[in-house]
Amino acid sequence: MPAEDELDPVIHAPVRLRVLVTLATLRDGDDLSFTRLQELLGLTPGNLITHLRKLEDAGYVTTAKEGSGVTSRTSVSISQQGRKALDNYTAILRQLLDSASANGTSPH
Amino acid sequence: MPAEDELDPVIHAPVRLRVLVTLATLRDGDDLSFTRLQELLGLTPGNLITHLRKLEDAGYVTTAKEGSGVTSRTSVSISQQGRKALDNYTAILRQLLDSASANGTSPH
Repeated sequence: MPAEDELDPVIHAPVRLRVLVTLATLRDGDDLSFTRLQELLGLTPGNLITHLRKLEDAGYVTTAKEGSGVTSRTSVSISQQGRKALDNYTAILRQLLDSASANGTSPH
Repeated sequence: MPAEDELDPVIHAPVRLRVLVTLATLRDGDDLSFTRLQELLGLTPGNLITHLRKLEDAGYVTTAKEGSGVTSRTSVSISQQGRKALDNYTAILRQLLDSASANGTSPH
């Protein structure tokens, strides 16, 4: 885990941020197939595998392979730890972005 | 300039994002000294110089040296192009983060 006020580098990489955000839209216990996730994000299998591995190493996503051969399906879901890390990341980032909006040219 | 819906990699690096956000809080025409910016962000001179150079190359910030020797001061300010790029980046990121919040566990 990164420092409390630091943008988690595991999440900050744009592809991984998009993966986590997409998985976070699922209800608890639901998952997406690897193939569907790949389609949604427009990624090559190799690219998605690389980033999923980093997210899995951090404990933010879990993957499970069901079946074998041509009928196999790899499911991907976000963990509770992943949701918590994403929430924390989002809060830090929103605070940072809000401070930029509070400037002289576009006050609110 | 990156694609319309892509997170600008020049801005996305956390240090550069913090630099731009800090400069964006200034009114048009105002600047910060290099030393003050360094203090605010807790960066080494070398680290700040590296990132300012990338922001300057992209046309997002301008720097100007006034005076010489021990009394010299380097001023740093955000350009109109930099404000526009930051606004665009912020809009893309907020949209992405909002789509994560619209999930089953914490709806709003």
